[in-house]
Amino acid sequence: MKNPQLNKNGELQHLLTTEGLPVKIVRDILDRAATFLDAGGREIKKVPLLHGKSVFNVFFENSTRTRTTFEIAAKRLSADVVNLNIGSSSTSKGETLLDTVGNLCAMHADMFVVRHAQSGAAHFIARHVAPDVHVINAGDGRHAHPTQALLDMFTIRHYKKEFHNLRVAIVGDVLHSRVARSQIHALTTLGVPEVRVIAPKTLLPTMVANLGVQVYHDMAQGLRDVDVVLMLRLQNERMQGAALPSAQEYFKNYGLTEEKLARAKPDAIVMHPGPMNRGIEIDSCVADGAHSVILSQVTFGIAVRMAVMSMLAGAKG
Amino acid sequence: MKNPQLNKNGELQHLLTTEGLPVKIVRDILDRAATFLDAGGREIKKVPLLHGKSVFNVFFENSTRTRTTFEIAAKRLSADVVNLNIGSSSTSKGETLLDTVGNLCAMHADMFVVRHAQSGAAHFIARHVAPDVHVINAGDGRHAHPTQALLDMFTIRHYKKEFHNLRVAIVGDVLHSRVARSQIHALTTLGVPEVRVIAPKTLLPTMVANLGVQVYHDMAQGLRDVDVVLMLRLQNERMQGAALPSAQEYFKNYGLTEEKLARAKPDAIVMHPGPMNRGIEIDSCVADGAHSVILSQVTFGIAVRMAVMSMLAGAKG
Amino acid sequence: MKNPQLNKNGELQHLLTTEGLPVKIVRDILDRAATFLDAGGREIKKVPLLHGKSVFNVFFENSTRTRTTFEIAAKRLSADVVNLNIGSSSTSKGETLLDTVGNLCAMHADMFVVRHAQSGAAHFIARHVAPDVHVINAGDGRHAHPTQALLDMFTIRHYKKEFHNLRVAIVGDVLHSRVARSQIHALTTLGVPEVRVIAPKTLLPTMVANLGVQVYHDMAQGLRDVDVVLMLRLQNERMQGAALPSAQEYFKNYGLTEEKLARAKPDAIVMHPGPMNRGIEIDSCVADGAHSVILSQVTFGIAVRMAVMSMLAGAKG
Repeated sequence: MKNPQLNKNGELQHLLTTEGLPVKIVRDILDRAATFLDAGGREIKKVPLLHGKSVFNVFFENSTRTRTTFEIAAKRLSADVVNLNIGSSSTSKGETLLDTVGNLCAMHADMFVVRHAQSGAAHFIARHVAPDVHVINAGDGRHAHPTQALLDMFTIRHYKKEFHNLRVAIVGDVLHSRVARSQIHALTTLGVPEVRVIAPKTLLPTMVANLGVQVYHDMAQGLRDVDVVLMLRLQNERMQGAALPSAQEYFKNYGLTEEKLARAKPDAIVMHPGPMNRGIEIDSCVADGAHSVILSQVTFGIAVRMAVMSMLAGAKG
Repeated sequence: MKNPQLNKNGELQHLLTTEGLPVKIVRDILDRAATFLDAGGREIKKVPLLHGKSVFNVFFENSTRTRTTFEIAAKRLSADVVNLNIGSSSTSKGETLLDTVGNLCAMHADMFVVRHAQSGAAHFIARHVAPDVHVINAGDGRHAHPTQALLDMFTIRHYKKEFHNLRVAIVGDVLHSRVARSQIHALTTLGVPEVRVIAPKTLLPTMVANLGVQVYHDMAQGLRDVDVVLMLRLQNERMQGAALPSAQEYFKNYGLTEEKLARAKPDAIVMHPGPMNRGIEIDSCVADGAHSVILSQVTFGIAVRMAVMSMLAGAKG
Repeated sequence: MKNPQLNKNGELQHLLTTEGLPVKIVRDILDRAATFLDAGGREIKKVPLLHGKSVFNVFFENSTRTRTTFEIAAKRLSADVVNLNIGSSSTSKGETLLDTVGNLCAMHADMFVVRHAQSGAAHFIARHVAPDVHVINAGDGRHAHPTQALLDMFTIRHYKKEFHNLRVAIVGDVLHSRVARSQIHALTTLGVPEVRVIAPKTLLPTMVANLGVQVYHDMAQGLRDVDVVLMLRLQNERMQGAALPSAQEYFKNYGLTEEKLARAKPDAIVMHPGPMNRGIEIDSCVADGAHSVILSQVTFGIAVRMAVMSMLAGAKG
């Protein structure tokens, strides 16, 4: 089956998921992202690569933070950016998703950044846009959030240089997390030999082992000698649900504290996609501590999104 | 009476309605719009005509789609664009419409794009802005939606070349439609010899024949030998009202199907202002069929709005 | 104690309040604002001083009008502007204010414009941003609204040339007004010898005389021979409260009418921060009359905000 993310020349046409993304493309994205950062990795330069192009942030599900990161990335590339909160507009007028997308294409969009509550929405849109329009999945249901996973890979490479010698643990609500799925695929693609997931049984997909990960239900065991700890956000709505006893209980068992982190390697890094629930999935001491690279993730996220956008815009397929 | 849309040199000062708009101005807008499209009519170029100018999208009534078309048009002209959703802000603080407009003028707006639920709101604002400020009506109550009608005229000319030999039918809820009013005035101005409206009696204004149109209550008769079919959107709120028996009944009588369309000329084009209610006013086969030019309307709409904005900005009155 | 608004070279690092702002800085802001206006004070020029910089409008409290003035000012300076309505996003996801700000800094913001319902929020944020990030307070609780006060000073200087010979009256709900506090500090700093506040006892802070102002409860006395009348907005929510008998009663006693204004000097100017409640705190005859400079305030407000932003961007601390 043809890879829906690549054009006939094998270039990146859409970014929909890290699953099945060729390792060369992943490495190209990370390499290009590095060029948008200064030597220290702190400053992001403004470049005219997307001048005259129109990027539409089409958010069927509200997310100010994610929308802002894409808006900033597109403006640093000198694109025209239009934000659309579709939840409150055309769909409520009975228009189909396909008509909404068709209309936006007809307005001569060059790129869509799509967030949608339904798994597969970005793939569906990518199948129906004109050949010169590019789609970036900014999160679809429980399925994928590829730019988050790619910025996580960039962060890991920045601090650890290589992937082939790493032990990485993903901790928390894997069941409902599109971030976790995208991370697992990206880590595997980049050759990380050992990926662990640590979670209570109620927050794990039934077939999780099929993803090529090792499953732990105990933090003390799961964190032992890991190089990288990827914390997941616990969705507020889960905390009220039957899946969890209580926030306190969750924190006791799966919240990342300094004590638990001591099981990891001495130079382990701690990451989180944000926004954090301090005191629930992560202790403030750890979030603000020496192992945390959480704010670097945000900075790198802008560079990675610039890299993806500029690669898509350059595809000649 | 002085035409409120023209300055003392006869140039376009505001675009408020297609009623009373001189045919020369209408043709100038269509000609200029053509210059913003490439030869094939698919690509829209970015130009610096409004660099340094500020366009305010002032929407007292929410409409993501219409606001987006104006935002895109203004950005393609290199203007600074500011979006204001007034519904949720100053008016709720008790400020008068005139004070809101006065304030925005004082911020040195060059152009207002106004959407308002009250008929006549754009005219009212145009009467009160400073002489160097231009107003575009993006829809006021049941009154007018001139850029929609102008993009429809552009589309008709694109496919039919001339107006003087056309038979055009407008189908649907004419009673509540600002689009229909603006279309009728524009078609008449451009010399279309036969404009028909097709609707049930309950969805027609009582004095509709005074607008110079022929009235039909039957689709089979009304569509016979027409060159252009302009479908109107059936507002959701009407469908629940007493004016209509049911959506199914409406579709049976006034929904555009391939069978009904067969009465029109073989090369007839089908248009719709969007968003469409598929299966209510139009069948999907027709919406996506060979006669449909609905998505071209959207593309042309950007070019027409660029044309209007650049003409207003160039008025030296 | 170190002034939190100045860097180690004594340059403006943040604009948080007019309290304690050195008179030289205040005069610099007013002088620089003048350079952004043409000779007549009506036109604002576009300049590239903030090209490549990112200004984040971070509004934890909704205010379309204030947000728009900053957005326009930043765009006139050629900055990239990102609007964030935080009320409806991350904070509702349980993220702390500090995490929100940390994240935005990590996205490489150059400047924050902050509106928050809590007094002191802008100071708090300024204490925690990176050294190269600047914060502008766009209103925090009842505490301060420095750009409003500075544009008021600009307006006074524009019409009255000097401050040292003026009698200025501030009228209305001083108790709840961050604008009044900021005005009093700015007027005092600029050497206005006589600042009066006129209000019912229920709308005055208990220690108001400590601010160096003269207190009046009677308009006829308070307005006598003043050069400048600064009206305050009466918040809608106060009007329903126990603090006031009724809107009619308030207008009778403290609403600015031509009759009451006749007590002021013949060339007195009348100002209001907007949005106005006509017929409550100010009569329409006065709002639209010869003494009113209310719309000039809005125009000057853009220039003053451009001045502040460009000074902050130029600080080399």
